Amino acid sequence: MFEWSIKAEDGAARAGEFHTPHGVIETPVFVPVGTQATVKATTPAQLEELGATLVLSNTYHLFLRPGDELVAQMGGLHQFMQWHKPMLTDSGGFQVFSLSNTRKIDPDGVTFKSHIDGSMKRLTPESSIAIQENLGADIIMAFDECADPLDHTYSQEAMERTHLWAQRCLDAKKRDDQALFGIVQGGIFEDLRTESAQVISSMGFPGHAIGGLSVGEGKADMYRTIEVVNAVLPKDKPRYLMGVGTPEDLIEGVLRGIDIFDCVLPTRLARHNTAMTNFGRLNLMNAAFARDERPIDEECQCYTCRTFSRAYLRHLIVAKEMLAATLLSIHNLHTLLELARNLRRAILAGNLNTFADQALAKLGIARIPEVHP
Amino acid sequence: MFEWSIKAEDGAARAGEFHTPHGVIETPVFVPVGTQATVKATTPAQLEELGATLVLSNTYHLFLRPGDELVAQMGGLHQFMQWHKPMLTDSGGFQVFSLSNTRKIDPDGVTFKSHIDGSMKRLTPESSIAIQENLGADIIMAFDECADPLDHTYSQEAMERTHLWAQRCLDAKKRDDQALFGIVQGGIFEDLRTESAQVISSMGFPGHAIGGLSVGEGKADMYRTIEVVNAVLPKDKPRYLMGVGTPEDLIEGVLRGIDIFDCVLPTRLARHNTAMTNFGRLNLMNAAFARDERPIDEECQCYTCRTFSRAYLRHLIVAKEMLAATLLSIHNLHTLLELARNLRRAILAGNLNTFADQALAKLGIARIPEVHP
Repeated sequence: MFEWSIKAEDGAARAGEFHTPHGVIETPVFVPVGTQATVKATTPAQLEELGATLVLSNTYHLFLRPGDELVAQMGGLHQFMQWHKPMLTDSGGFQVFSLSNTRKIDPDGVTFKSHIDGSMKRLTPESSIAIQENLGADIIMAFDECADPLDHTYSQEAMERTHLWAQRCLDAKKRDDQALFGIVQGGIFEDLRTESAQVISSMGFPGHAIGGLSVGEGKADMYRTIEVVNAVLPKDKPRYLMGVGTPEDLIEGVLRGIDIFDCVLPTRLARHNTAMTNFGRLNLMNAAFARDERPIDEECQCYTCRTFSRAYLRHLIVAKEMLAATLLSIHNLHTLLELARNLRRAILAGNLNTFADQALAKLGIARIPEVHP
Repeated sequence: MFEWSIKAEDGAARAGEFHTPHGVIETPVFVPVGTQATVKATTPAQLEELGATLVLSNTYHLFLRPGDELVAQMGGLHQFMQWHKPMLTDSGGFQVFSLSNTRKIDPDGVTFKSHIDGSMKRLTPESSIAIQENLGADIIMAFDECADPLDHTYSQEAMERTHLWAQRCLDAKKRDDQALFGIVQGGIFEDLRTESAQVISSMGFPGHAIGGLSVGEGKADMYRTIEVVNAVLPKDKPRYLMGVGTPEDLIEGVLRGIDIFDCVLPTRLARHNTAMTNFGRLNLMNAAFARDERPIDEECQCYTCRTFSRAYLRHLIVAKEMLAATLLSIHNLHTLLELARNLRRAILAGNLNTFADQALAKLGIARIPEVHP
């Protein structure tokens, strides 16, 4: 049910296909984030027009509201939010650990204060899996512990707990129409990341994720850590870099063998008036765009760029019209979805390095050489 | 360029066609309101899918922001907001007179305080036409004065000024690709409305509007006033009831010979969690809908009802997701657009009375008999 096949390789990069009960995911792929069972400000019809395949939703948020049991009663997450292509849910681990002042970790799980009503809630490996089984995504994630990536002692402790919890997630899992991915932790530390990749990849998960990155460490540390982990992770399983999603991170990640990326950045920046383009970011609030008849990006084929001028988008922003968030979300998601598709095309064509150099040059960002090329 | 033809009549009601430079408007028609050059929370593609033909935008708002000269430089309102079907702009009169504490009327025009930056601005019949010529809608409106509809003295004064200003608008108008509609005023008073309808219809406008209703007078007074005015207005010009848009008002208005209706109600209610249906309003925030798998209206064919459950819509509302406003706007606009289309079908089929009785019964609203049937 969850076949992974590699159609082409170029260096460490792969063009793959991951088969799920709701369809095939062609990789590399960018995954729009629908935190509360909706990719903010967009309809499923618009996401489909954008060519999105895999969509992520957050276990933490849906557990608190509307509740995973309600979603299950409504036929599961696909039916509830009417996204009939593949879906992924995270484990809630990352969100819970982000509540640094209002949660308490013990060997069995985490107790935390709901950000909605202040009530005390609890997540364990077993309950995270039970919730994700109620939600019913195609890909579900092991319950892990994210640590400060620069603190070796805490990173080691969190990693060890993550390994114990990974096994408990495997043991707790009942549904066979969901692929449970294991998560590698270990901060920016080569020894820990190597150990974690070895332990996690020995456990028989159908896919692997790298967690705990893009949380404050520098780009060089992030890219180096990806290399360390991917040197250990088996090639014959998909690799998911969690929570990462700038254009340069997609390019550098794919060059290092990552297949799946997700990030709130495109929709969050959209709600803050910022367009992501292949040549960098534009703040459309800028008065310079008031009479600019050009689209955000002359080469972009999204609905927003095919239809509207920068002048109109700026007017919507200044006038505080909701349509601005929708049109910028469409554009920003298109930028990352299309970049991932172009990275795939380059791998299939065998010219990934040239494509990567040109794309990074267009962004005005220096390519960061691989440590072990 | 602006041909009006009546395809069928049923009592006072008409099924008509109004030809404009941007296409034909089949009447009766409901006009979505795009105050600031956007129908709130919807894309032009969604409006097109809804079958909208005529869209209204507000002169007052666009004059203040982004400015009519900027819109003209960007190619006019159709090009700016990318609505390529017929458009209508109001004159700014209604908005200015709503600013009751911060405007001063003199025989030449109105001075008022901008709600955006507090600066002093001025509108006159001539400048309202100049602004509307810059915006470039297909149908533009004469600059009128709305009065308290229950105050005879003020209603008479405002009506007389409206007549003088109507002639100044005709004199000021330069573009021949815009149809300027005259506006009948006179509050709820039969003598004033009759006089105003006579004066305005003698001035040679290609279409007539009834202004100053749905502003606090009762339904009976509103419907009676429509009858009084339409008894005088010539049949061979389209008739536009400004700012009116409940389902029952559309039905009662069409029965009395109205062709065009506009209202912010569907999109405003949508942003306040309320669905307009053929059987009344639903507040989707209501906990009763938390596990309701049905669409808003089982018979509705809009994208929202074809796709989503009440439970999901309630979740979006409770979670404060923008998508709620979009999906409810789509549904509410569909309800009124489709009701207008059904009224047209009934007129063409010669069964308007039966249709009206059934539609009002479904809404649970008693039909108000015509005073002069």
